[in-house]
Amino acid sequence: MSLFKHLLRNPTAKSYSYSSPSIIMPSNLILTCLSHFTTDASPSTVQLTQYSGLGPTKANEKPRVVVLGSGWAGCRLMKGIDTSLYDVVCVSPRNHMVFTPLLASTCVGTLEFRSVAEPIARIQPAISREPGSYFFLSHCAGIDTDNHVVHCETVTDELRTLEPWKFKISYDKLVIALGAEASTFGIHGVKENATFLREVHHAQEIRRKLLLNLMLSDVPGISEEEKSRLLHCVVVGGGPTGVEFSGELSDFIMRDVRQRYSHVKDYIHVTLIEANEILSSFDDRLRHYATTQLSKSGVRLVRGIVKDVDSQKLILNDGTEVPYGLLVWSTGVGPSTLVKSLDLPKSPGGRIGIDEWLRVPSVQDVFAVGDCSGYLESTGKTVLPALAQVAERQGKYLFSLLNRIGKAGGGRANSAKDMELGDPFVYRHLGSMATIGRYKALVDLRQNKESKGLSLAGFLSWLVWRSAYLTRVVSWRNRFYVAVNWATTFVFGRDISRI
Amino acid sequence: MSLFKHLLRNPTAKSYSYSSPSIIMPSNLILTCLSHFTTDASPSTVQLTQYSGLGPTKANEKPRVVVLGSGWAGCRLMKGIDTSLYDVVCVSPRNHMVFTPLLASTCVGTLEFRSVAEPIARIQPAISREPGSYFFLSHCAGIDTDNHVVHCETVTDELRTLEPWKFKISYDKLVIALGAEASTFGIHGVKENATFLREVHHAQEIRRKLLLNLMLSDVPGISEEEKSRLLHCVVVGGGPTGVEFSGELSDFIMRDVRQRYSHVKDYIHVTLIEANEILSSFDDRLRHYATTQLSKSGVRLVRGIVKDVDSQKLILNDGTEVPYGLLVWSTGVGPSTLVKSLDLPKSPGGRIGIDEWLRVPSVQDVFAVGDCSGYLESTGKTVLPALAQVAERQGKYLFSLLNRIGKAGGGRANSAKDMELGDPFVYRHLGSMATIGRYKALVDLRQNKESKGLSLAGFLSWLVWRSAYLTRVVSWRNRFYVAVNWATTFVFGRDISRI
Repeated sequence: MSLFKHLLRNPTAKSYSYSSPSIIMPSNLILTCLSHFTTDASPSTVQLTQYSGLGPTKANEKPRVVVLGSGWAGCRLMKGIDTSLYDVVCVSPRNHMVFTPLLASTCVGTLEFRSVAEPIARIQPAISREPGSYFFLSHCAGIDTDNHVVHCETVTDELRTLEPWKFKISYDKLVIALGAEASTFGIHGVKENATFLREVHHAQEIRRKLLLNLMLSDVPGISEEEKSRLLHCVVVGGGPTGVEFSGELSDFIMRDVRQRYSHVKDYIHVTLIEANEILSSFDDRLRHYATTQLSKSGVRLVRGIVKDVDSQKLILNDGTEVPYGLLVWSTGVGPSTLVKSLDLPKSPGGRIGIDEWLRVPSVQDVFAVGDCSGYLESTGKTVLPALAQVAERQGKYLFSLLNRIGKAGGGRANSAKDMELGDPFVYRHLGSMATIGRYKALVDLRQNKESKGLSLAGFLSWLVWRSAYLTRVVSWRNRFYVAVNWATTFVFGRDISRI
Repeated sequence: MSLFKHLLRNPTAKSYSYSSPSIIMPSNLILTCLSHFTTDASPSTVQLTQYSGLGPTKANEKPRVVVLGSGWAGCRLMKGIDTSLYDVVCVSPRNHMVFTPLLASTCVGTLEFRSVAEPIARIQPAISREPGSYFFLSHCAGIDTDNHVVHCETVTDELRTLEPWKFKISYDKLVIALGAEASTFGIHGVKENATFLREVHHAQEIRRKLLLNLMLSDVPGISEEEKSRLLHCVVVGGGPTGVEFSGELSDFIMRDVRQRYSHVKDYIHVTLIEANEILSSFDDRLRHYATTQLSKSGVRLVRGIVKDVDSQKLILNDGTEVPYGLLVWSTGVGPSTLVKSLDLPKSPGGRIGIDEWLRVPSVQDVFAVGDCSGYLESTGKTVLPALAQVAERQGKYLFSLLNRIGKAGGGRANSAKDMELGDPFVYRHLGSMATIGRYKALVDLRQNKESKGLSLAGFLSWLVWRSAYLTRVVSWRNRFYVAVNWATTFVFGRDISRI
């Protein structure tokens, strides 16, 4: 009957869960069997565990690839890595990949949050099955390239379940795929007051704020002025994210707010502020089309530069004050604090410098992919744009490179020094897409701004946009869910429960 | 070109959104047109608006039914109220109804959160369409029955979008459907450390904690003891909620954790602590069956009384310490602080006292339904249990009573004093259902504990349970979503992304 004691002392005993007499017991019996079940740990244990981790791999183990990050680059790499050659350890503060092109749609309920999040264990099942492969919900705190070690610290959120602690992981190969951070250009108040649109929790916050403001503006006692402010949604940054979010928002207003918040429908407005031109990477005709369509659906396009942001208004360079109820910031990305702090060579713009094989050339066994990396000046190549398709292509290239190295026996630390790596990575731009709401999208299939090629706008593009993304969603489960979400939104309208 | 000025001064102007020249403008132009767009309000305006609200209805308006709360009782009433007779105003801190019997399933990803939440605007569309009907995201702060006025205060969460403010609503008829609060029996530390299971955000918190603990327990540096603690899920309270949650949890462990968290699968355990017997309202045979099934699927049933709860362990009456990583508290409900504070007659147990027509008899035009209400001792009837089916039946009874009163011309305040109300409310228990995980459920169709009747357990019951709830989910949209969720879980397993 030593139920809890058993649990504590020998947790892996197979016989435990099912054969123990787990019935309602008189409480005098429990006293004896629970009394040893305490959480006290002696200081020495704590000391010991605080600095433990995964040591260098042994000869009878597979070499270990450590992947920092779980974005497009890291996940594409993990999906393709040959787990018969390598153990995979992923370190990231989130346990899922975000299908970023569809994130804007989740803010207004066109898609569910879950439909755009893909658990890493589903992308690479070995992580939860193989004894040497892991996912660690942690931040990377530093990299010791001399000793092939990564320093990590656990993420525990606001939940008081455990104190954060530090640990180390030795790597045979290290893939840095840490991504980038939203740029604020040092503008005061952006981080405190604006919401970015890069993670699922950002989309959740936007949705909560939007629905809260819609409801608050309906409550008696609020002035006309406050009502207009609360329902003024301002988007700063006219790149694809800003434009797509503005389009989704105006769709939501035209189709759902008018019906379901009819008391306040005339107060809600969307303003898109951009310092230069919107969608600057698209061709002129498409940009013109987007401008016309967005204006038609009620999005005001304003050219301006933001100087300062406070909790209820932002101030433009010329002194104009713009009150807002919701502020979404999408002015592009730059290197993260961690990337800046790493003692590694840098590319122009401050990203981690890489050569044509995506290696960090000054050290052994370290690669960098995605938004955190850029070609070193010495390669003579320009830094690639921070796009999902660049990251994904790099992840794809790198897993086959690592698989080749592994097959050739160069998987261990310091064992691939003089290996022939084959063809370098070459990026071919496949084109850009952006939806601008209400069955309209842009598809620009030119390889770069100067070259000629197909560019489409309108309903056909929108079909292309939907189909392209539906097929690119990572798992069948989410593909199914995205399709169901789209169908439901079409039939029933968007969901407005604020949960 | 007075774009923002226009927005501010005349927000309802129809011509605004679509005909204004909303194009990229040179910034010197914006200066002039945005300069008046500020949020400053003079103190007198603030003073004025702080105390405004909805005054008594006028002769040319419909009488106003104010509903406090958005649970089973309030929502059933709103769904059925005749909006050609009445304007409906709902005051609640949440804009949706929770389909509580399925809430436990959302904690482990069997169902999505959205599938069990029904927006009030979908339950009663008049709330968003009719000019005199509203939903206010607010708490009720007090009731002035002499003047037929409700005092409210807006809910603004942690979002700093606006300061909370107070307002008043005059009612012709008032329906108090404020529900109840989870009982903690004054046990120290329950509110701070345990999670209840009554709202969607509770289920979200449980899910976040559970997935966090599963991931943290896998990180190097954690002792065996801490691992066992983190993955020890303790449920206190063996009523249907506690049993269903335990069942879902053991399902999740047996089907999903074993596959996807194989490194830690032997450390996770579920303990259900109950002071008396589990499922005490069900018949003996069913209870015995539930006990056997839960034990078989690894849930440990412990009889004990909790004395104290701290952040990592709870202490039983006999001094036993039980470390936990997740603590769910479901020991039933009692009157809320607001209900206790209301100066109205009370039933035995401290609920708002009602007569057989669900009226609060000492005052005019006030009714109380659901968990917040109970028969007055003077009626000679016993207080009904705090069940969804009681609340729903009362909501149903009351909307037809109010519709009858309205048709007979008694809709206004103080105009139905001497009206004949017809048959009193009679409650007939339709039976109880509870799922115990893994295609097993209990269905007890006896009218009360003493009477004879059909009682079922096993797979057939589980089919009955699923079908019964599927047909009772409020909207077709959610019915469709629940079915899709069940199918997806069956095919792909549960989702484990922590978003």
